[in-house]
Amino acid sequence: MRRAIELAKKGCGYTNPNPLVGAVIVKDQRVIGEGYHEKIGGLHAERNALKNCIEDPEGAEIYVTLEPCCHYGKTPPCTEALIEAGIKKVYVGNLDPNPKVAGGGIKILNDHGIETETGILEEECRQLNDIFFHYIQNDIPYIALKYAMTLDGKIATATGESKWITGEEARRHVHTLRHQYAAIMAGIGTVLADDPMLNARIEHGNDPIRVICDSNLRISEGSNIVKTAREIPTIIATISKDQEKIAKLEQKGCKILKTSEQDGKVNVKEVLKQLRNMEIDSVLVEGGGILNESLIKNDCVHKVYAYIAPKLFGGEKAKTPVEGKGIERIQEALVFDELKATPLGNDILLEGKVRSCLPES
Amino acid sequence: MRRAIELAKKGCGYTNPNPLVGAVIVKDQRVIGEGYHEKIGGLHAERNALKNCIEDPEGAEIYVTLEPCCHYGKTPPCTEALIEAGIKKVYVGNLDPNPKVAGGGIKILNDHGIETETGILEEECRQLNDIFFHYIQNDIPYIALKYAMTLDGKIATATGESKWITGEEARRHVHTLRHQYAAIMAGIGTVLADDPMLNARIEHGNDPIRVICDSNLRISEGSNIVKTAREIPTIIATISKDQEKIAKLEQKGCKILKTSEQDGKVNVKEVLKQLRNMEIDSVLVEGGGILNESLIKNDCVHKVYAYIAPKLFGGEKAKTPVEGKGIERIQEALVFDELKATPLGNDILLEGKVRSCLPES
Repeated sequence: MRRAIELAKKGCGYTNPNPLVGAVIVKDQRVIGEGYHEKIGGLHAERNALKNCIEDPEGAEIYVTLEPCCHYGKTPPCTEALIEAGIKKVYVGNLDPNPKVAGGGIKILNDHGIETETGILEEECRQLNDIFFHYIQNDIPYIALKYAMTLDGKIATATGESKWITGEEARRHVHTLRHQYAAIMAGIGTVLADDPMLNARIEHGNDPIRVICDSNLRISEGSNIVKTAREIPTIIATISKDQEKIAKLEQKGCKILKTSEQDGKVNVKEVLKQLRNMEIDSVLVEGGGILNESLIKNDCVHKVYAYIAPKLFGGEKAKTPVEGKGIERIQEALVFDELKATPLGNDILLEGKVRSCLPES
Repeated sequence: MRRAIELAKKGCGYTNPNPLVGAVIVKDQRVIGEGYHEKIGGLHAERNALKNCIEDPEGAEIYVTLEPCCHYGKTPPCTEALIEAGIKKVYVGNLDPNPKVAGGGIKILNDHGIETETGILEEECRQLNDIFFHYIQNDIPYIALKYAMTLDGKIATATGESKWITGEEARRHVHTLRHQYAAIMAGIGTVLADDPMLNARIEHGNDPIRVICDSNLRISEGSNIVKTAREIPTIIATISKDQEKIAKLEQKGCKILKTSEQDGKVNVKEVLKQLRNMEIDSVLVEGGGILNESLIKNDCVHKVYAYIAPKLFGGEKAKTPVEGKGIERIQEALVFDELKATPLGNDILLEGKVRSCLPES
């Protein structure tokens, strides 16, 4: 199963909104085939493993990180393929939370006389698919805040300088995150200040869909984002009714997403629900403190990636990662499970999952 | 030498302003004696190791983390003891930076026909004594900032709540720091808000001297600090000329330290120089953002301990660890060497040494 988990990870960034799945086929204690779900629309892990078998899988056992599907989606059900191949026993990491499966795959296998055992390395298999599990069970995508700050909690100097807070290694790491997430969200402030591309600049990087929260449509038609909207899907969320500007942006390839007003700004929850309807499973937010606070207040944050640089800026007025009004009582704080620390050059990445989003144990 | 380093650490918190030193005596490839500098005024490591020998050390070799002293201080020179005992060879971690020693110990040993080898595990031995090396070479103590903040860089909520940001394990760890440092410094703001004791509440904890920066002598005579000033040495640094209040505080056992004025406040650098003259080798600062910024501006920070809690408070107006005006350009930032991360319960301690304070390599 450990090997199956390793295989599953290879699909990272290519399968959204499908889960990451790996499979290993074993016969007479030898691995005879392995595979993983490589990309959305492609074969599932089980079928890839069967395809790659170096000998007849009849009577073999298969280890698969997620319950084999039993419904017709973009590909026919994997249970059929396993039955046809004459697989004897199926070891499963997690049941599939998708209501179309949810134990149904196991049942069909059993009905066909195939032995099954579930819960093998369950937690590790589960962690492969935080995003998928969340996506299937909720009406908004999985949202992660990402920011770079100093050891005294500043995302810019008092005069607004923010390039660069972290070193090269940390900044390169951001691009692997962008590759993993289906969409990237930023506020108009960031776009006006930095004129960013918000793409994934790594080899074989999968550019995320760009979502800009731009309440009053202040984005410039000459910005890098608008100029490349035909190459990289770009959504601009707004409450503006400026039909002329809307038409111009649409003409350049931007998709305009209108929302109701919340505190004079775009209603972020509505934006997220619409993204979910577009089958966007995950959003990486590279916003400023205002957008971040707005998401927190709307209970729309599931994870944080904080890149911390070994520097102090000081400054009562220097910007911090979460601004707005903030909480009053400590008990109201958004709390994460224990933090995971990863050194990146001289910087450190601290990652936390929001506690209420963790599975009950 | 590794064993000698382990032994040296046992003196932590008891030897200030002396260094931590460990020594191991080896004869015929067997350890026949070991010792460390246990406390200020007590025997040095070499003499303790000789005292603990289970057989005659004549012809033996000794591993000692720091160059044996050759001057009369609180105890007679260790070189004499090694010569008398008939030690054949001395392995040394670091030369002693103390100008009264600085290679002199090695020279005396060589003059007496004792072989020496220096630089054994030099870096590890050096790290034992960051504080001592700094203290010997500078006119202010070694200064560390300590603060607890959220993952979005806040040391309190927008309304000022700060109890508790971190969990029990992190808070317990603070007491081991207080034990290690010779003095603890806080601003009057902290004292008025929390009425703290600022002592080391661990078993066999050595309470640091308390130093309160109180420009206008606002401290209450009924505060925990003033009430316990006879048990725990307490210094109040001020620019106030209120003789009546000064007399009252002195009567309660506080020592009043007058400084010149800097921006209407206590001149922190002057305070630190006076502490150095009092043989205080190290100061742990548990101040707010104003005191911290003042120390940074005066180039008086050598290390930071940032305890980071897995929480977000938000709030444009919530206090951060370093406030004041702050820097304008990123290049002006106070930069640390790579950060060291230590998990403490659900929190993480990030430690960094200021880059310019690191030894040239």
